[in-house]
Amino acid sequence: MDAEEFRKRGREMIDYVADYLSNIESRRPMPDVEPGYMKTLIREDAPVEPDQWEDVMKDIEPIIMKGVTHWHNPNFHAYFPTANSYPAILGDILSDGIACIGFSWAASPACTELEVHMMNWLGKMLNLPKEFLFSPGGHGGGVIQSTASEVTLTCLLSARTKIINQFKKNNPSIEEGEVISKLICYTSSEAHCSVEKAGLIGAVKMRILEPDEKGSLRGVTLEKAIKEDKAKGLVPFFICATLGTTGCCAFDNIKELGPICEKEDIWMHIDAAYAGSSFICPEYRPLLDGVEHAMSFNFNPHKWLQVTFDCSTLYFRVKDSRLLAGAFVVDPLYLKHDTEGEMPDYRHWHIPLGRRFRSLKLWFVLRLFGQKKLQAQIIQDIKLAKEFEKLVLEDKRFEISFDVIMALVCFRLKGTNEINEKLLKLISEDGRIHIVPSNFKEKYYLRFAVCATSTTSEHVQFAWKVITEMTDKLKV
Amino acid sequence: MDAEEFRKRGREMIDYVADYLSNIESRRPMPDVEPGYMKTLIREDAPVEPDQWEDVMKDIEPIIMKGVTHWHNPNFHAYFPTANSYPAILGDILSDGIACIGFSWAASPACTELEVHMMNWLGKMLNLPKEFLFSPGGHGGGVIQSTASEVTLTCLLSARTKIINQFKKNNPSIEEGEVISKLICYTSSEAHCSVEKAGLIGAVKMRILEPDEKGSLRGVTLEKAIKEDKAKGLVPFFICATLGTTGCCAFDNIKELGPICEKEDIWMHIDAAYAGSSFICPEYRPLLDGVEHAMSFNFNPHKWLQVTFDCSTLYFRVKDSRLLAGAFVVDPLYLKHDTEGEMPDYRHWHIPLGRRFRSLKLWFVLRLFGQKKLQAQIIQDIKLAKEFEKLVLEDKRFEISFDVIMALVCFRLKGTNEINEKLLKLISEDGRIHIVPSNFKEKYYLRFAVCATSTTSEHVQFAWKVITEMTDKLKV
Repeated sequence: MDAEEFRKRGREMIDYVADYLSNIESRRPMPDVEPGYMKTLIREDAPVEPDQWEDVMKDIEPIIMKGVTHWHNPNFHAYFPTANSYPAILGDILSDGIACIGFSWAASPACTELEVHMMNWLGKMLNLPKEFLFSPGGHGGGVIQSTASEVTLTCLLSARTKIINQFKKNNPSIEEGEVISKLICYTSSEAHCSVEKAGLIGAVKMRILEPDEKGSLRGVTLEKAIKEDKAKGLVPFFICATLGTTGCCAFDNIKELGPICEKEDIWMHIDAAYAGSSFICPEYRPLLDGVEHAMSFNFNPHKWLQVTFDCSTLYFRVKDSRLLAGAFVVDPLYLKHDTEGEMPDYRHWHIPLGRRFRSLKLWFVLRLFGQKKLQAQIIQDIKLAKEFEKLVLEDKRFEISFDVIMALVCFRLKGTNEINEKLLKLISEDGRIHIVPSNFKEKYYLRFAVCATSTTSEHVQFAWKVITEMTDKLKV
Repeated sequence: MDAEEFRKRGREMIDYVADYLSNIESRRPMPDVEPGYMKTLIREDAPVEPDQWEDVMKDIEPIIMKGVTHWHNPNFHAYFPTANSYPAILGDILSDGIACIGFSWAASPACTELEVHMMNWLGKMLNLPKEFLFSPGGHGGGVIQSTASEVTLTCLLSARTKIINQFKKNNPSIEEGEVISKLICYTSSEAHCSVEKAGLIGAVKMRILEPDEKGSLRGVTLEKAIKEDKAKGLVPFFICATLGTTGCCAFDNIKELGPICEKEDIWMHIDAAYAGSSFICPEYRPLLDGVEHAMSFNFNPHKWLQVTFDCSTLYFRVKDSRLLAGAFVVDPLYLKHDTEGEMPDYRHWHIPLGRRFRSLKLWFVLRLFGQKKLQAQIIQDIKLAKEFEKLVLEDKRFEISFDVIMALVCFRLKGTNEINEKLLKLISEDGRIHIVPSNFKEKYYLRFAVCATSTTSEHVQFAWKVITEMTDKLKV
């Protein structure tokens, strides 16, 4: 395909995407296919000679779209949102066109420098303490990673390196394995499953603590655990606190946890993957109070800030990010250049070496939306969740399971888990809306998340109509 | 931005990318900027009200392009190639438009299933043993990850889980830290720096072995190391062998290493990040012989197979990929669905939970190029490297440092490292071409890689002209 054909096909693809997103409501949010559906639709080998463009385009509907879950359908209310916007797509086309790899400053200076500036723009929008930002003579700063899972692992490993180095300072001959077997870290049972995964990968003990009845991990629980573990000869070194848990969007009490961590020299990492975007709104920023106690903070603009996946932003306030991300520093000659130190070499800030020019899509989104419109979307989504909550509360058969703080409503039929499971089954079979369940202290509930930016009050009313119709069938 | 404006702006961006790539040769491969160049060009905060599209586009040249290293300039010969092609960009636009997250089959069935089929298409193109492919009743298969760094870590962790489970079977009360402190794994001093990084993250000892004079790790070296380490009470469990090392594109001798690993129950992982794409050509496939001894195999279509970053493909031949990637299996209710087991849930196959619909760009590339054209590009690039080698050999001042097997030529001025460093400095200051150095057993040399698909014989001749001009200045 030459440049002239690309211009033509590019237009067709842009139009396809515009048509897809404009008419997405006519599709079922969750496709009606069985595992293995594609097998009979796709040939067994790659073609030897090129296919025609028209043949590929013709196959998109029957092969691909047939099995797509439409996350941007306004009736999709499962999981948490994943962002999508026209400005982000346009920034990403530019990133794909440039197709540079930005592992070091020299490998593509613009790739590193725009990321530095975008991390500061975003950090200031969140009113993060200035220790988390890049500044002359400072040591904090931000980096784009792929997912909150990767970020949590990065922070756990950095904390592990820090504590191992402390042990080695006192006892240079100590075995790393010996130190690791003494280490223990913490998280809440409501934390994302990737936190446990990070512990498994880091080969450290992780104690899962019980949150209070609102799903919030409290200081007193952590304090008790630390005391018990230290009595056993263990060394607490890391905690992952969550602001906006996946199950019920609960907020760990970082104002209580933070000072304990500082006193005990425990690295507090904050995972605000979903809720973090809301902190750009002054009315929600108080939920982040206590961040000044954290060593690292993460949220996903690719969830709720109009930036397409992947764009998970991590901020360090550590004194020397390079030292603390020391687990990652390996420096062969072919990556060396003369300018190290003045700009971050992002390859030291995460696990992968190669990296895309991801800050471009952030630049496009922040400029073409502007702060006010990004705030307005979040405020609107939370308002819709409140509207849904009101509908639930007006129906005596239902109860609200958790405070509605963000754009997620957790609700259930009063009664057994089984009856709620039955309700979800009916809703899923019906297929007009898509929601998923969760549970808390053995209580099963349903999650209604406002996901697509095209979701309106009408869709909220429609979702409730579907849910009550299905409930009527249950005759509860 | 609404759909109608997106159609318009999309066309403009497509044209911008087509113009950029068509005229890329007029730009200096490596930009002439100092660290921090962007600071005075970009404002300090995100705009509150939206900027105009025209303002953003107007800023691309003076702010972004000013600092871009143009990896697709035909005179860029640094590192290894990173792929780019019009079909890949078009597939990626579709992926961005759909913007689904494919962590489980249910989260977007097409995202999982197309990846399964594309991994089989690609695996068959490489003529991988069928144990590495998805098949009814089989247990192997492939997955797209972000980078070879991530893949190596995944495999090392899987091997670590496997050996820890073996220990625990015999001694259920054994501490994980105790097992880990006994573990040792291997790689060559010529392996990519990410292998060492994986060892640091996995908290296991890694012994760096010396390759032979051609940069190839040999069986006898591994055998000796295993014997020594076992005598010390250590437990060898993993080796990362490389086909096409980053420094000099050497090939570890997997036909020698493989049987040793099988005998000793050591997990052999093969990193063929760069060279792997060449195995789609029958004439280069023999370089992969011995893969039947490996537990896992990786290469990066995003390097040399026309697929834009990120697309690093990992094949497992393990009996139960889920069991062996057991380090990653964490299963909360909100991710459960009824169809597990029939199709892979890719979240168990790597570190991140979220994942893009990356197989779309692979589908576009494989269909719109066809196998023959992809082979032709590789054969052409290697031919150009051979042409460059011939030019070097004809100039008595120079020597070739390693056999030219792929599209990389390692060469140096006969004489000291210092004189070669001086030569590189002149070439870099001149700026018409971009190359980077490496070293081997303390000998410094220069690397000439054929990177851009637009590189022709004329560019090879031009590069040599620049190099000899600079050499003449040195008066050697």
